[in-house]
Amino acid sequence: MDNPEMAKVIFQPSGRRGEVEKGINLIEASRQLGVDIEALCGEKKVCGKCKVRVEQGTFQKFGITSSMDHVSGWQEEEDKFVTKKEKEEGFRLACAAKVEGDLLIFVPEESRAGKQVVSKAARDIPIELDPTVKLYTVTCMPPTFEEPTGDFERMCREIEKEYDLTDLSVDWHTLRKLPSAIRKGKWTITAAVWNDKEVINLWPGEVKDYYGIAVDVGTTTVAGYLCNLRTMEVIETASMMNPQCKYGEDVMARITYHQMNPGGLERMSDDLVEGLNNLIANACEATHPPKVKQKDENGKVVKDEDGKPVMVEAPEEGVEYLRLTPDDLVDITFGCNTAMHHIFLKLDPEPVGLAPFPPVIHHSLDIKVRDLGLNINSGSYAFILPNEAGFVGADNVCVLVAEEPQKKEEIALIIDIGTNGELVLGNKRKLISSSCATGPALEGAQLSCGMRAAPGAIERITIDPDTHEVDYKVIGREAWLKFSEPEQMQTKGICGSGILDVLAELYSSGVISKSGRFAKEQKSDRFRTNPDNPRQKEFVIAWAKETSIGKDVVITQKDIRQIQLGKGALYTGCKLMMRRMNIDKVDTVKIAGAFGTHVDKAKALTMGLFPDCDLEKVSSVGNAAGDGARVALLNRAKRDEANWIARNVEYIELTVESDFEQEFAAAMMLPHMNDEFPHLEGVVPEEILRQK
Amino acid sequence: MDNPEMAKVIFQPSGRRGEVEKGINLIEASRQLGVDIEALCGEKKVCGKCKVRVEQGTFQKFGITSSMDHVSGWQEEEDKFVTKKEKEEGFRLACAAKVEGDLLIFVPEESRAGKQVVSKAARDIPIELDPTVKLYTVTCMPPTFEEPTGDFERMCREIEKEYDLTDLSVDWHTLRKLPSAIRKGKWTITAAVWNDKEVINLWPGEVKDYYGIAVDVGTTTVAGYLCNLRTMEVIETASMMNPQCKYGEDVMARITYHQMNPGGLERMSDDLVEGLNNLIANACEATHPPKVKQKDENGKVVKDEDGKPVMVEAPEEGVEYLRLTPDDLVDITFGCNTAMHHIFLKLDPEPVGLAPFPPVIHHSLDIKVRDLGLNINSGSYAFILPNEAGFVGADNVCVLVAEEPQKKEEIALIIDIGTNGELVLGNKRKLISSSCATGPALEGAQLSCGMRAAPGAIERITIDPDTHEVDYKVIGREAWLKFSEPEQMQTKGICGSGILDVLAELYSSGVISKSGRFAKEQKSDRFRTNPDNPRQKEFVIAWAKETSIGKDVVITQKDIRQIQLGKGALYTGCKLMMRRMNIDKVDTVKIAGAFGTHVDKAKALTMGLFPDCDLEKVSSVGNAAGDGARVALLNRAKRDEANWIARNVEYIELTVESDFEQEFAAAMMLPHMNDEFPHLEGVVPEEILRQK
Repeated sequence: MDNPEMAKVIFQPSGRRGEVEKGINLIEASRQLGVDIEALCGEKKVCGKCKVRVEQGTFQKFGITSSMDHVSGWQEEEDKFVTKKEKEEGFRLACAAKVEGDLLIFVPEESRAGKQVVSKAARDIPIELDPTVKLYTVTCMPPTFEEPTGDFERMCREIEKEYDLTDLSVDWHTLRKLPSAIRKGKWTITAAVWNDKEVINLWPGEVKDYYGIAVDVGTTTVAGYLCNLRTMEVIETASMMNPQCKYGEDVMARITYHQMNPGGLERMSDDLVEGLNNLIANACEATHPPKVKQKDENGKVVKDEDGKPVMVEAPEEGVEYLRLTPDDLVDITFGCNTAMHHIFLKLDPEPVGLAPFPPVIHHSLDIKVRDLGLNINSGSYAFILPNEAGFVGADNVCVLVAEEPQKKEEIALIIDIGTNGELVLGNKRKLISSSCATGPALEGAQLSCGMRAAPGAIERITIDPDTHEVDYKVIGREAWLKFSEPEQMQTKGICGSGILDVLAELYSSGVISKSGRFAKEQKSDRFRTNPDNPRQKEFVIAWAKETSIGKDVVITQKDIRQIQLGKGALYTGCKLMMRRMNIDKVDTVKIAGAFGTHVDKAKALTMGLFPDCDLEKVSSVGNAAGDGARVALLNRAKRDEANWIARNVEYIELTVESDFEQEFAAAMMLPHMNDEFPHLEGVVPEEILRQK
Repeated sequence: MDNPEMAKVIFQPSGRRGEVEKGINLIEASRQLGVDIEALCGEKKVCGKCKVRVEQGTFQKFGITSSMDHVSGWQEEEDKFVTKKEKEEGFRLACAAKVEGDLLIFVPEESRAGKQVVSKAARDIPIELDPTVKLYTVTCMPPTFEEPTGDFERMCREIEKEYDLTDLSVDWHTLRKLPSAIRKGKWTITAAVWNDKEVINLWPGEVKDYYGIAVDVGTTTVAGYLCNLRTMEVIETASMMNPQCKYGEDVMARITYHQMNPGGLERMSDDLVEGLNNLIANACEATHPPKVKQKDENGKVVKDEDGKPVMVEAPEEGVEYLRLTPDDLVDITFGCNTAMHHIFLKLDPEPVGLAPFPPVIHHSLDIKVRDLGLNINSGSYAFILPNEAGFVGADNVCVLVAEEPQKKEEIALIIDIGTNGELVLGNKRKLISSSCATGPALEGAQLSCGMRAAPGAIERITIDPDTHEVDYKVIGREAWLKFSEPEQMQTKGICGSGILDVLAELYSSGVISKSGRFAKEQKSDRFRTNPDNPRQKEFVIAWAKETSIGKDVVITQKDIRQIQLGKGALYTGCKLMMRRMNIDKVDTVKIAGAFGTHVDKAKALTMGLFPDCDLEKVSSVGNAAGDGARVALLNRAKRDEANWIARNVEYIELTVESDFEQEFAAAMMLPHMNDEFPHLEGVVPEEILRQK
């Protein structure tokens, strides 16, 4: 079966794997297998962003041996980016190392590309395996005249004997499978039991591996993590745009759509469910061999009656295909923000949008998937993570479930930045939460040049303090502007992760002052008065020729004000919560969500996005909603913990605090106070610290 | 509101009531209000079958005072049928007593007409009120910035405070009603809670009365009892043919239909569910005012666009209409035999039809009504009573739940006669059950003249021992043949309740001998050799001119053999069970089902249908499946008791007993053994006892 031209490569933590041709570099291998590795310079070995680690050893689970001998030799360009210690640990630049044999490659978080629209990778988090759904295989005696007990009680008796599990009930649809399954398995049968209570699926004979999916329903993006519930392995990651985007980009727009359109709530929910079913089908489809067009002996494509090419499976040699179907999935969990939660479940979201923003329910829900219209095993329950408050949803609960500040001594500040900033502060003694109206600016929305994180969106930027010249990178293209022809950029706007870069660079380069106004002294023709609107000052980020929209991408004085309002709201929220807790410093800051993954922490701290903290104690906790849903899928105690959190974290409404307004005004300054960052000396560019 | 021409009349135990014109007799009043009173002689005051009791006193619940002064005076014909003691208790012949004022009339079981196809009346059984679904009304504080807890937790907090009910979950569909209901009720809300666990319905403000329905799904007939869950009152009784009859008259025919037709099981179930929804809708419709054709000022019927008459409500004065809709019902219970249970729930019934007949499940089931497609309140659960064994279903469980032999010292034999006889024997120390293949003959099926209990079916018969002349009564006509013109009878065949009459009368009149063969000496031309089949001996029950089928209704030697086989199987079953229990006499015999209601106990005992027992200890327990379903609807402890019964009653397969064959052969004799019935002297006609 071994083709000497090919090598097996596995990328972790995503688990993606397959065979690739020997001789290609690791970036190309990652592309072929659907893994995204950061490659800013376009594989020119000059940016050092594509660092990966070659794992060494024999990996029985995957049937390969991976070693340093299976990659091409060290190149001197790598010395610049890989430290001696890292080199010893097996680190290489993915653009420099070529595949020469089987490999298991670990892609560190900082090397993963931020294609949030395309994929949200599963993060490595420690999870203790104890799923809500468990399998039990038993062998029964067939019925006789002396012992004609019914099938279900016959099976339960053996389950009780072997596993000490009593008083099981059974899902109706599952019960319908029982007589044929138990006879087909010659009285050996495997039962999937939910919560030690209810039999929700049955298979003839013995079954060991079984599957579930954790889903993060974001306002913009939906991601699913298909997991093996025996091994905890993430088999597939699938993601899509939230199909509700067509009814409104943000939460408030969708609540308004519901208010204005009878049946709108049902329509939004139904669209999401249809999308979820596609997402699930796609994730399962990926466990089947790829399909290719069937060809006849002459190499001509065979077509069906309708003239469409006939597709046939083309299994790759040596690859084991699970061939899952949605019906194989026995558990599903959902993490959503409160508004997405309500719209998904067709619960009136109107009260969530009106002060004091009470949700319809906080507690988690177990809903039969067939009720929701989800096409997985029909006896299964969907577990919907609980809501903390009207604007503090399961995303936040998920962060707490994964990060566990409620079990620690140190005081953590957890920030989830979206249209609303969701904040949690505290430690094992007390946790409070709040939300602040950061507005959509920090996500890049509603700015003159703002856009969603999609190909063509500026996600990184630098501005030269001497010339005010701009360099940047867009999603979908690895090389920065200075490594590209202008026409290659196809720029469209600035996305959320680029916004803070823009603000910080505008400030540190002196384009704007501490108050956020454009400085009097400007060094380039990028600063101008809008030709059509003499009252609008603006700064050109990308010239028309670099764009695909045929006009300059600019940032206006109003845009800057919007960003300042956002960061001011966030900072004020943090500060007022700290005052409530009677503390003046937090021990750790954790930034959740895509924003946290992409933001430059030093810049965020410098710009005053959140109060002072040791830089190394500021961390991104990635796609927390997805992680939380996955944790809830794999460990049922975490479901109770999530409810404990939703019940015990005290929600505080900040806008009613006495000096909210003054705090807010002060927080809009850039940066908040220079002398609050003594430790930033050396970390933050001198120009920033020097500036008043 | 009081019309001096009218009087309010209420019939118990059915609860049917309304206003009737003064001056009509009680039979006519019962007809108008949909109550069936036995009236064999056609209101000629000569049969004495229509005895009813006039209740005396003021009945606040119904707002009336009922007294003997409200009926017309005593008539001397009544002396013949109403004893002095009964007269003192208020008994009258319904055909003799006329309405002269408000009345509450009790119709004893023996006076109720056996129109099983039309209606199955609810029996008076003592039930302790403790329904599975209960209502809780609470008033909450509206949410504020200081206390923005979500709607569900806000409501639960008050329920916990006032009623000490904790850890409630909520049905998804019900949760969707919460935000509008709680606001519409100005933060006062009533919750329907299932099993102290789950909120399954919500109403704004305070609600006190609430409703449920108990359903008995028989192979032939389906009956529903719509009950007020606060007062236990039976509001309406509705019944229908089981729509599955078109797929086969009996259980085995339907199992065969499933085996032979892919999708047949689903079709049979779907038809039943459609029928159930109609039944429920009809029961609810009966709580609305009757509808009449709308007329214009000239008295002309108003028609709609399609030319159909426009119907308008015509409420009767003084009648309070509940105006229920199916959505108002919050609980539903089902009692079925095992095969009906399986077909209803789309569980493969094949194993139930094959030795050793194991059912798919014994235990009761709680299934969301929306899963089953039942159109009552969508958050509700249907409770499906448990099965004892493959051929001992919930009917039997229901008898035990209602009759409680498991709590008594006396040894009871409980018989439910259908195509299969279902038997239970025992007392508080031990209960065993069994089934015996009585075949369809005892129900009248598969005999040359057999038919279902429907209009035109012979249900009572007498044969003159001297002349062998026949008199009989058919369903749908009150007068016997001798009170009628032959053409008025419109006879079609013999139904189950008439079969034993026929056998007993044939035997006691000497038409047949103890062995079941036609006697050598025959006294009328009713006995003959079939003109078309010289090997077939037969006896004419009804001449062609009395029938609506244009030919004689006859009973053949083969028919008699079938009936003997049925009664022999039943008797053998009882005997073998008694041997297992080591007893030679039972203390009580209870006959369940329509057969028990209609059979003449003395004749059944004489014919050897079941072993010897004091005649006054033989009783009919009526429609036990319906009673059981109603008990389970009104008292939740009875649900657990039903499961206890299904688990603890030991099922015994009789056909594998060693001397089954010999016992069976002996049991086919008529009667079994004369000297077994010493106490029957004087009760049973001398001709029978004398005969050898």
